Amino acid sequence: MTPSPSPSSSELSDSGRAMASPGSDNSAKRGGLSRRGLLGSAGAGAAVALAGAGAMAATGRAQAASGPSWSTVAFHGARQAGITTAAQDRLHFAAFDVLPSATRDDLVQLLKDWTAAAARMTSGNGAGPTGPLSGPYDAPPDDTGEAIGLDPANLTITFGFGPTLFRDAAGADRFGLAARQPDALTRLPHFPADNLDPAGSDGDLVVQACSNDPQVAVHAIRNLTRIAFGRAAIRWSQLGFGRTSSTSTTQATPRNLFGFKDGTNSLRAEDTTNIDAHVWARPEPRAAWLEGGSYLVARKIAMHVETWDRGSLREQENIIGRTKAEGAPLSGGHEFTAPDFALAGRGGTPLVDAASHLAIAHPEHNNGVRMLRRGYNYVDGSNQLGRLAAGLFFIAFVTDPRTHYIPMQTAMASQDLLSEYLQHIGSGLWAVPPGIAEGEFVGQSLFA
Amino acid sequence: MTPSPSPSSSELSDSGRAMASPGSDNSAKRGGLSRRGLLGSAGAGAAVALAGAGAMAATGRAQAASGPSWSTVAFHGARQAGITTAAQDRLHFAAFDVLPSATRDDLVQLLKDWTAAAARMTSGNGAGPTGPLSGPYDAPPDDTGEAIGLDPANLTITFGFGPTLFRDAAGADRFGLAARQPDALTRLPHFPADNLDPAGSDGDLVVQACSNDPQVAVHAIRNLTRIAFGRAAIRWSQLGFGRTSSTSTTQATPRNLFGFKDGTNSLRAEDTTNIDAHVWARPEPRAAWLEGGSYLVARKIAMHVETWDRGSLREQENIIGRTKAEGAPLSGGHEFTAPDFALAGRGGTPLVDAASHLAIAHPEHNNGVRMLRRGYNYVDGSNQLGRLAAGLFFIAFVTDPRTHYIPMQTAMASQDLLSEYLQHIGSGLWAVPPGIAEGEFVGQSLFA
Repeated sequence: MTPSPSPSSSELSDSGRAMASPGSDNSAKRGGLSRRGLLGSAGAGAAVALAGAGAMAATGRAQAASGPSWSTVAFHGARQAGITTAAQDRLHFAAFDVLPSATRDDLVQLLKDWTAAAARMTSGNGAGPTGPLSGPYDAPPDDTGEAIGLDPANLTITFGFGPTLFRDAAGADRFGLAARQPDALTRLPHFPADNLDPAGSDGDLVVQACSNDPQVAVHAIRNLTRIAFGRAAIRWSQLGFGRTSSTSTTQATPRNLFGFKDGTNSLRAEDTTNIDAHVWARPEPRAAWLEGGSYLVARKIAMHVETWDRGSLREQENIIGRTKAEGAPLSGGHEFTAPDFALAGRGGTPLVDAASHLAIAHPEHNNGVRMLRRGYNYVDGSNQLGRLAAGLFFIAFVTDPRTHYIPMQTAMASQDLLSEYLQHIGSGLWAVPPGIAEGEFVGQSLFA
Repeated sequence: MTPSPSPSSSELSDSGRAMASPGSDNSAKRGGLSRRGLLGSAGAGAAVALAGAGAMAATGRAQAASGPSWSTVAFHGARQAGITTAAQDRLHFAAFDVLPSATRDDLVQLLKDWTAAAARMTSGNGAGPTGPLSGPYDAPPDDTGEAIGLDPANLTITFGFGPTLFRDAAGADRFGLAARQPDALTRLPHFPADNLDPAGSDGDLVVQACSNDPQVAVHAIRNLTRIAFGRAAIRWSQLGFGRTSSTSTTQATPRNLFGFKDGTNSLRAEDTTNIDAHVWARPEPRAAWLEGGSYLVARKIAMHVETWDRGSLREQENIIGRTKAEGAPLSGGHEFTAPDFALAGRGGTPLVDAASHLAIAHPEHNNGVRMLRRGYNYVDGSNQLGRLAAGLFFIAFVTDPRTHYIPMQTAMASQDLLSEYLQHIGSGLWAVPPGIAEGEFVGQSLFA
C-alpha cells in the first residue's frame, strides 16, 4: 500500500482545494478538459450541492474559486477558533489515541501536520499542499475531494490534549510531558448514574470540527484522520446535526430534542468580562503553556425522548423550570429575565421548582459559575428497542473543570428532575492550548 | 403512562407548530408571557438556530409565522412528494414494523394518522392538531416541539409498503393484502458480496423524510414514530447529511465520499418522458392500487474510504471511468458527454475501462435502464478499527426492481472495479403508493 502523505507544516500558500486560484494554472489536461473549464462546473455544482451553509455562504458557493465571498474564520490568533466563534450549525467531533509506536517526535510532527492542514482547510483549501486534483497523477491525492468547490462555511478546527497524553493508564510518561500536566486535567470522576461507554469516552487528543456545512466538517475530520496515519487513530467520533447553544448575542437560542430552548444562560462571546473569568484557563505553575487556552468538557447525553414525550406540558415546564414557548423562567418575564427562586404561587409553592433544571444548574446555586456551551443535537439512528438513539452532545469550554463542571454535574446527576430522562453515555476532558501565530504549530507551547 | 396521542386524520386546519397563526390568539398566558410575545422570540431564535436550509429558507425563518415565505412542498397530488421533488440536502429515513398485535383496522388508522401528521408537518405545522404548545396544559403536547418556529425547508415525507406487509416471513396474510401484492415486490435477492445486517434491512413500512434542515427531518420521523405507538415501531433508521444525487436540472451534481460527482446519469424531474418510462410503476393486474406509484430501493453501502484514499488519482479515475475534477468520461468531453466505450488510447486500451463503474452501470450496458436516484452521504461515527463508519445511503425510485435494479446490481457486485471499495450492509424494497387528494389517506387505494 502506498503510504499516506505527510505534508509538511510550512506550505500554507498552496493551491486550492478546488484548484481554485486563478493564477495557478499549471494543470494538465485530462479527459480533454482544462482546469479552468472544470472550475466553472465544480463551482456551480457545489453551489447547489450543499445548501447547509446559510445565506451568506450561498453567495460564496456560487463561485468556483475560494475568495472573499466565502465564509471563513481565521485559524491563527491568540485563542484557538471554535471556542468563542459564533456556534456553527454542524459538528464532527473526534477523539484520537496516539499509537503505542509513536514517539514524542512523531507527536510533534503530527501536530505540525495537523496545523498545516487545518490552516489550509479552514481557508477553503485542500488538506495537503497540492489538493485533491493537482498532485502527481500516479500518487494518491493529498486531499480526499468531497469538499471540492465547497465554501468552508465558517469551518473551525479546535485541538485539545487529554490527560492520557501526559500520563497513560499505567502512569507512564510516554512523551516526556508529565511534568507539564495541569492539575485540573485528570479524567472526569464517575458521576451518579453515569453509564459511560469506554469506547466512546476520553482520548489522547481531540479535534472539534464545526461548520455550517456538514460535508465540510466531515471532510476535515476525515483528512486529519488520514494525515494521522501511523501516528494516531480515531478512538471515537460523533456527528451533531443541530447546535443547541448560542455563543454570540447575534444568535438566538436554539432548541434541544426535548423541544426546549437550550443554553439560555450560556456565555456569549460579547460578554468578554465573563468569558475572561469563566472560559480561559487559570494560570497554573506547571502549565504555563496553557495560558490563553481552556478546558473542553464533552459529554454524550442520551435523551429518553419517548418517555419525555409522555409528560404533560405542565410537567415538562416544571422539570425545566421554564416555559416551553419562550424559555422564560416560571417565575415570570422573558427568556433572559433572572429567575426568582423565592417567588411562590398558590399554596406557597415556589413557581420555579427547587429541583428543576433551571434551579439546579443556575449560577446562583453554583457559586456563580458560568459556562460557554457549544453542544449539538445528535441522532445515531435507532436502537434495538426501536427508539431513536438521540440526545445532546454536550460541549463546554471552562476555566477549570474542578470548579466549573464537576460540582454542577454532581448536583445535576443526583438532584435535577431532568436527570430521570437522561443518561450520560460518553465523556471526555481535554486541555485546549492557546491559539498560534503563523509559522507556529498547535500545542507548540507545550513542547517548548 | 399516558397514552400517546392519536390525532385524527381530518383536522388539517389546525393551529400552527409555532402557534403561529396570528388569528388563533387563544393562548393562556404562562409565565407572564403572551403568545404573541413568544412568537417574535421563537421566530428570531429559529432564524439563527438552523442555518441548514439555504438562502431561500433563511428569509422564512426570520418570521415567526408559517407563511408564504417559508419553503414548502405540496403534500397532496397525483404522486407522492419526495420522489421527483428537487432533492433536499438532509435525510432521515426510517423503516417500521407493524406490531404483532395490530389489526388491519389499526394499520388503516395508522396510515390515516400518519397522513394527517405529514400534511401538517410539511406545511410547517405541528404533528398534531394542537401543536407543541397550545394543547391542554395537563396533557402531553401532540408535537414534540424541537421544530418550533423552523421553516419546513422543503420537507417531504414519502411512504412505502414492504413485501412483509403483504405476507410475513412465515407466509401469513396478516392484513388481508396478499392478493394485492405486486409481483415485483419481493425481498431483494442476495447479491454477490452482500453483508447485510438484518436489523438494518427491510421493514413492513418505510418513511423517507427529506428537508434542507436536518432538525425538521428528525422532527418528522420522531413524531411519526410517536404517533405509531402501539401499532408500529421503528425497525431501523438512518440519517444522511449530504445528498449525492440531483433530481432536477436546476441542481448541479454533488460529490460522494470518494470525492467524485455522483449521480450524473440519474434522471432529472424535467425529463418527463424518461421519468414516465423508468420511475412510475408499471401496471400490474394484481396491483392496480399502485398506479401512479413507484418502487423505492434502499441500500446502505459502506465505503472503505481509507483504502480508497490510498489509490492514485489515475487509479481512482480509472475505477470510476470519469475525471475526478469534472466528472467527464475518460473518453473526453464534459460531465454530461456520452462516454465512448470504444475509443482507445495508447496501446489500443479503451480510455474507459470496461470494468469501470461508468461502464458497468451505464444504460448502454443495462438494456437502457435509467434510475431516479436520491441518495445521501452518511457517517455513523467511527468503528472499532478507528475507521469512519461512512458511506452512501443509496435510494432509487424505479418502475420495476426486476428490470431496473436487480440486473444492474448483480453486474456491479461481481464486475465493477469499484466494488472492491464497497460493502452493502443494509437493504430494502418498498412499493410506494401514488399520491392522494385532500381527504384521502396514503395507501388508500390498497385498502379500497
